[in-house]
Amino acid sequence: MYDLIIVGAGPAGLTAALYAGRSRLKTLVLEKMAVGGRILTSETIENYPGFTSITTHELMAKMEEQVKALDVQIKSGEVVDLDCETKTVKVDGTHYKAEAIILATGAKPRKLGAIGEDRLVGRGVSYCATCDAPFFKGKDVVVVGGGNTVAEEAIYLTRFAKTVSIIHRRNEMRASAILQEKLKENKKINFILSSTLEEIAGKNSVESIRVINVDSGVETTVPCQGVFIYIGYDPDTGFVKCNLKLDEKGFIITDDMMQSSVDGILACGDCRKKPLYQVVTACGDGAIAAESAYKYIAKKR
Amino acid sequence: MYDLIIVGAGPAGLTAALYAGRSRLKTLVLEKMAVGGRILTSETIENYPGFTSITTHELMAKMEEQVKALDVQIKSGEVVDLDCETKTVKVDGTHYKAEAIILATGAKPRKLGAIGEDRLVGRGVSYCATCDAPFFKGKDVVVVGGGNTVAEEAIYLTRFAKTVSIIHRRNEMRASAILQEKLKENKKINFILSSTLEEIAGKNSVESIRVINVDSGVETTVPCQGVFIYIGYDPDTGFVKCNLKLDEKGFIITDDMMQSSVDGILACGDCRKKPLYQVVTACGDGAIAAESAYKYIAKKR
Repeated sequence: MYDLIIVGAGPAGLTAALYAGRSRLKTLVLEKMAVGGRILTSETIENYPGFTSITTHELMAKMEEQVKALDVQIKSGEVVDLDCETKTVKVDGTHYKAEAIILATGAKPRKLGAIGEDRLVGRGVSYCATCDAPFFKGKDVVVVGGGNTVAEEAIYLTRFAKTVSIIHRRNEMRASAILQEKLKENKKINFILSSTLEEIAGKNSVESIRVINVDSGVETTVPCQGVFIYIGYDPDTGFVKCNLKLDEKGFIITDDMMQSSVDGILACGDCRKKPLYQVVTACGDGAIAAESAYKYIAKKR
Repeated sequence: MYDLIIVGAGPAGLTAALYAGRSRLKTLVLEKMAVGGRILTSETIENYPGFTSITTHELMAKMEEQVKALDVQIKSGEVVDLDCETKTVKVDGTHYKAEAIILATGAKPRKLGAIGEDRLVGRGVSYCATCDAPFFKGKDVVVVGGGNTVAEEAIYLTRFAKTVSIIHRRNEMRASAILQEKLKENKKINFILSSTLEEIAGKNSVESIRVINVDSGVETTVPCQGVFIYIGYDPDTGFVKCNLKLDEKGFIITDDMMQSSVDGILACGDCRKKPLYQVVTACGDGAIAAESAYKYIAKKR
């Protein structure tokens, strides 16, 4: 029996563990992949306050070390079931029970499925302009998608890149009229419409892409150094079978104390519905979730 | 004319500056004291993710360096007036104008006014148990105040300290009944009621305090190594004369995008009303405020 179980050891989960450990809660952290989380798919981070530039592996190793200095247990294992009522999780056939649970499972960007996409993630392929745009100063980049986010991120990228080409499978964007006007006014932005991205090529980093026009079937090779993909995110909340309030995409709904719709089940970081998905905001969430868990447990005793 | 003016260069303001600089907004940061803010009154910080233990001066120097590597201007000067309508601030007789303004002015703990209090801040005198409690393992500490926060923080401190004495000027606490019960059950907690703390003594760090019983006038010296003071916080929002929605204590009310009641005026960090006042949550706020400012400015153009 633990005081607190934290599911996920990315920036949100590790910060929650740091605060929980400091509050002397008997805490178990469960991580199904490597400690550090999805951030490890990026190479370098330059927008976490305190480090002008650091590899994501180094940053997450520092956070892990800080947590391990406290009396917190980190175990490897995938949570396949969560009982909100009894605060029990199931991992590799074992059940763990706690007084409160923090979900910090993160979210995954939806993949295009293009050839070379997986191999070149973090080496020109990115799912976050706010994170990676400054690495593409003076470069030619493409952006894949058709919605408002794509339009906003394309405009943002023009502050850095030499050219930004938007690739969309339909013959017009879904973005709002005002955003579409701004795209058209911006001389750095081109459109490759009615087209799908089939392949991302490059030896050590992105060098070109191959697109197919869906009407004519004509293939074109476009030289570029960056590919930004915006076709949505999927929160890792599939194992949550209890009656937790989620939004239409599966993100957990919380209040500003990170409290979900079920008492004593908190959520923080990318798995919750929130306005900005960044490492530093995930960490902020984690601190608040641990504080809420501490108060919830203290009140029950 | 700037794109963005940020008032205050603590963790919230510097993180906002980092994100604004990376978004290539023409940004001015104004700080009336030293860059770093109120956190500098603490010596060491151990709960900012990424640094197991670091002096606050070092941490804030790192954040400043990171911002200065971008094209962001940091100026010394006290904002004495803010015109929300025209987005103009007045500093040392000069007016600066921007398209959006982020307020990151922080808050000050209310001082007791005891002899020795100022001299021993960060050397045994603290205004935040969540920040400093682990520095007092096995020590004798006192807590000053009578409300719910005092009760919660005293209970929290018993996880670290050997004894926790609550000093309150009335003959009973104002804390809720349930909290008072918990205080009484806890063997580490003593009460020094109907008493005021007059002096905090110690050469290099706190060694004892002198209290006076308000009924009998009797003076007592109590040996202790820590003094936690909880008589409230005052946000630094006195210069805000425009029609910004504040709570009853003067904290700025924002939504979860850090947007205040006036369009294009954002607030982040300790000067806004929020659930947890920590360096990492201030940084999270700062990133969101900068993102909101960027979107506000992009929409207007």
